[in-house]
Amino acid sequence: MDDSWWSQRFHPRTKLMRRSAVRELLRVANQPGMISFAGGLPSPDLFPMAEIEEAARGVLRDSGTRAVQYGETEGLMPLREWIAGKYSTPSLQISPANILIVSGSQQALDLLGRIFLGEGQTVLVENPTYLAALSAWRPWGCAFKSLECDEDGLQPDSIPSPCPESARFLYTIPNFQNPQGTTLTEVRRRRLIERAHRERMIVIEDDPYGALRYSGQPQPSLLQLDAEGRKSTHANGHVVHLGTFSKILAPGLRVGWVIAPEEVIDTMVRAKQSMDLHTSTLNQEIALRLAQTGCVERQLPKLCAEYGRRRDTMLSAMEKHFPSGCRWTKPEGGMFLMAWLPDNLDATDCLKRAIEQKVAFVPGADFYIDGTGRNALRLNFSNATPERIEEGIRRLGAVLSAR
Amino acid sequence: MDDSWWSQRFHPRTKLMRRSAVRELLRVANQPGMISFAGGLPSPDLFPMAEIEEAARGVLRDSGTRAVQYGETEGLMPLREWIAGKYSTPSLQISPANILIVSGSQQALDLLGRIFLGEGQTVLVENPTYLAALSAWRPWGCAFKSLECDEDGLQPDSIPSPCPESARFLYTIPNFQNPQGTTLTEVRRRRLIERAHRERMIVIEDDPYGALRYSGQPQPSLLQLDAEGRKSTHANGHVVHLGTFSKILAPGLRVGWVIAPEEVIDTMVRAKQSMDLHTSTLNQEIALRLAQTGCVERQLPKLCAEYGRRRDTMLSAMEKHFPSGCRWTKPEGGMFLMAWLPDNLDATDCLKRAIEQKVAFVPGADFYIDGTGRNALRLNFSNATPERIEEGIRRLGAVLSAR
Repeated sequence: MDDSWWSQRFHPRTKLMRRSAVRELLRVANQPGMISFAGGLPSPDLFPMAEIEEAARGVLRDSGTRAVQYGETEGLMPLREWIAGKYSTPSLQISPANILIVSGSQQALDLLGRIFLGEGQTVLVENPTYLAALSAWRPWGCAFKSLECDEDGLQPDSIPSPCPESARFLYTIPNFQNPQGTTLTEVRRRRLIERAHRERMIVIEDDPYGALRYSGQPQPSLLQLDAEGRKSTHANGHVVHLGTFSKILAPGLRVGWVIAPEEVIDTMVRAKQSMDLHTSTLNQEIALRLAQTGCVERQLPKLCAEYGRRRDTMLSAMEKHFPSGCRWTKPEGGMFLMAWLPDNLDATDCLKRAIEQKVAFVPGADFYIDGTGRNALRLNFSNATPERIEEGIRRLGAVLSAR
Repeated sequence: MDDSWWSQRFHPRTKLMRRSAVRELLRVANQPGMISFAGGLPSPDLFPMAEIEEAARGVLRDSGTRAVQYGETEGLMPLREWIAGKYSTPSLQISPANILIVSGSQQALDLLGRIFLGEGQTVLVENPTYLAALSAWRPWGCAFKSLECDEDGLQPDSIPSPCPESARFLYTIPNFQNPQGTTLTEVRRRRLIERAHRERMIVIEDDPYGALRYSGQPQPSLLQLDAEGRKSTHANGHVVHLGTFSKILAPGLRVGWVIAPEEVIDTMVRAKQSMDLHTSTLNQEIALRLAQTGCVERQLPKLCAEYGRRRDTMLSAMEKHFPSGCRWTKPEGGMFLMAWLPDNLDATDCLKRAIEQKVAFVPGADFYIDGTGRNALRLNFSNATPERIEEGIRRLGAVLSAR
């Protein structure tokens, strides 16, 4: 049988499904001795292993067989109640009917594509933006239009006016953006919501890192500002908010959530039924117990202290070791920063030499939708210890200086 | 904001996403006192709870943080090795490269749609067939063509010849089919594979129940016959095989697998990366440990003994309580049988009266792709105890007799 027998039968959209460069890099990055700034891995040293073990045992004893039986597509009601409680404020009422539990935030991105996107439609995105969102949506045949961005996040006034009918939604990571680490300022958040209301535009607020702030002032969520801007207390506006336990507990649980108007949740539930029936009941029960017993609350200060130290270590090591002509962002939280080499340098070329020196990062070009960013690199500072960060940046600085 | 603001923005394919009647029914079926033959739930009494708890503890201690960290999209290598070993025979070599771990078999169905299906294409299916496969594929705009079926499964000679180009694949559940409980005979399996080779057709073999056989002779898998028919030992033929731990361990883990030629696995991996990154590492580790410690092997005789007893109880209670003019299948395994009422009776009408009498089932019409089957009902015999089955069938018989 010739090699192409199957490929002739694949749908043409499979050509738009690319292997994630980041995930492929993770294999190289796992070589012994490698210091990796490549992945988006939380630090395993900080996983609350004893509490996860205790939670798993407790769940299997107390919830019994229910914890491993089929469950409802919407997700466990008490988990949805807990999430609703975390987000509700006097000016924003979230009910469990506004919440869908998903198998990690990536599934929420996939769901958004499935219910909103098709040929000829457009998604407005930050440039650069999260690679796996582009990968999830590209097979639907949509186009991406980039908004202008700077160190304060996206520029709301770069949203086209009137916003074309084909623009299905705007996608933003307002807190500690992946890949840049930038945060959308409050002024711009308010302006973005104003523009969304005026243009009757859907805004997707992807917020995996929001709780991981190490300096600066917390910013109101777009979800919150949307309700205030409509002078309503109901989560029935223009914003779909995505959250996850991956960065504050552990990613291997694959438990995230969507907050949206009921009509969106209902439609997503219908889509999710055919996608995986429901998110693992066991993992939802474990996440719920860790939430209810305060493990999440206890984790946050530990994560913020340690990741803040790692960020500081990386930033000061970069000052010391990176050659002149480089510049980089200085994130107030999250897991990533982005650096730009002098224009004549190509980050992918540098990566090859970096890997020889046992240090890895992700070239930035993949995150850009317009072919720019060849001199950009994304650096993760959450995974390696401060000592390894110091050493890795020293190695990387040497690679970048040796040209 | 008017109700239709969002719905105007949903993609038209969302109209093809229907809420699963079965899953909605499960809510009603959970009312106190209800005897439910509706869902497809394994019996919680038979879940190996102590071993799952032991496995979870062991995994979190021995695999440590790896068990809750991000993992590779393909799935855990030792789990793929274990599955490869289970399927390999002298005449069929399966390697881990032929295996993708999925978040339950439902995700495999979704993946198949994503890589193969589009507007104007056709899927050949048994009629009736598994509802959630239809739901997963309908939003891609494909059509379904039914093959003739009887008590021995699908009739391979009803496959059109020549098979039209638009026919993307044939989907079959050869063992203890859902919803009918029928099993494809060996003669028909061989004939089906012959036809597949001649027509150069892809066959999807969905086998969630294969290990749950209570009487009769085990049949060779289509995967096996495909290799034999090609006089090859490599899993590089026309068959994509789907398996799952849901029915032999516990469904709440959401761990299943796909066995296919490497080219198909590679394409599915690219698709799955954007769908949920990977299946929960924790759940894969738990399933692996339960497999390696022999829990799966120990479960099978227990499940077969008890489910066999429940099947027998249901069949003899039906003989006693169902009115004349009804007929039903007599499955050799699995979890379901199908019954047909006299032609003038509508199963959905009967369901309303049945629920008043605290007994539930799924009307068969949803499983048929051609609008027939209004007098059919699917009965699950794995979930209720024999005593409850006896009582439930008595109640149902009274409902069906009172017309």
